[in-house]
Amino acid sequence: MSNKDLAVVLVSGGMDSCLTAAIAAENYELAFLHLNYGQKTEVRELESFNKIADYYSVQHRLIVDMKHFSEIGGSSLTDNKIEILNADLNSEKIPSSYVPFRNANILSIAVSWAEVINANKIFIGAVEEDSSGYPDCTDSFFKAFNNVIKTGTKPETEIEIVTPLLRLSKSDIVSKSIELKAPLHLTWSCYKNNDIACGICESCALRLKGFQLAGLEDPIPYRDKPSYI
Amino acid sequence: MSNKDLAVVLVSGGMDSCLTAAIAAENYELAFLHLNYGQKTEVRELESFNKIADYYSVQHRLIVDMKHFSEIGGSSLTDNKIEILNADLNSEKIPSSYVPFRNANILSIAVSWAEVINANKIFIGAVEEDSSGYPDCTDSFFKAFNNVIKTGTKPETEIEIVTPLLRLSKSDIVSKSIELKAPLHLTWSCYKNNDIACGICESCALRLKGFQLAGLEDPIPYRDKPSYI
Repeated sequence: MSNKDLAVVLVSGGMDSCLTAAIAAENYELAFLHLNYGQKTEVRELESFNKIADYYSVQHRLIVDMKHFSEIGGSSLTDNKIEILNADLNSEKIPSSYVPFRNANILSIAVSWAEVINANKIFIGAVEEDSSGYPDCTDSFFKAFNNVIKTGTKPETEIEIVTPLLRLSKSDIVSKSIELKAPLHLTWSCYKNNDIACGICESCALRLKGFQLAGLEDPIPYRDKPSYI
Repeated sequence: MSNKDLAVVLVSGGMDSCLTAAIAAENYELAFLHLNYGQKTEVRELESFNKIADYYSVQHRLIVDMKHFSEIGGSSLTDNKIEILNADLNSEKIPSSYVPFRNANILSIAVSWAEVINANKIFIGAVEEDSSGYPDCTDSFFKAFNNVIKTGTKPETEIEIVTPLLRLSKSDIVSKSIELKAPLHLTWSCYKNNDIACGICESCALRLKGFQLAGLEDPIPYRDKPSYI
């Protein structure tokens, strides 16, 4: 066992959470939390989660099913009646992939777990600029949530949400991942497919643009690529 | 369909949530949300939930499984390794039945659902005085959570948590329930049993004390009763 303090890291299996784990690993012993919320690429994301956890030799792993997001609906990621649109990175509208209040649900689970295993940080790889206007990816949201943690846990509990990627661009994320040897080849970002990344959904498009701007080649294969790549 | 605005009501199946539903029903069309979180009396509570929903002719019902509370552990309500202690109503310690950060988890689900079905209130029957020092049952917690909702939902969304029972005593709750014809005979409070209420767990003790102070008879049968009743 390590003498470091314990930190819960939210690991979806994507590039952002992979870098977040790499950053947390510099100062903390890691506890990895993964959420299945009925997203269409659930199986592939979990596979990436476990590969990244193996890479960092993570002992504490918790995988939580949040199937109610499918029942609640309202997002193209979990509701089969809503189509996953191709990316429009210039739109200021909240995209159809927005899962209502998802981060509050995820962070609440993380805090419950952190309080029981005595972790005092929760790392989440939210990216404000690239998050397509999701309201629960903003600095003011995380600040407000830290205040809820203070008021809603035991007096002796000290848990804080840490968002090291909040102000980074996708190209910063690519560069920083290479610097910290984060295993990007193990990650999965595509919203549509479970086998080969589609290359054209919002998440693939953001990822590919990040590699392009960083002047680097994405190590995973794609079925298709947007015209600007 | 009613012309009233829609309100989500958190209905555990207990006395407090039953009165909360009765209060919400005065001004709102009701949507009932129930959480199974691996508690030992899950089946009996769900039965009460459905009976109360039938009583108020509630169309919108959502039942969510939060099995991860059992995996996370840390509470006598969900962890078989921790014993449910008999009540000590004079203790100031946080009791073993405390489920870490439970209300934040529950409210997050309620907000996600409310945002999708266009409900603008969430009624929760939290009782500060009687809640045995659970940190997530306080006014400051609910205020902080309302702030998280403002920052973490779509700009056009207006959802507010309402806590009509927060300052009431259990005897106030009994009296007010009778006044509003809330169906207390359909409710379930016991933490221990699924058939006949034990009468001696923390939750039974609080309930029985409430009826005693209100000078009324509890309509449900008990296996045992504390010596002061």
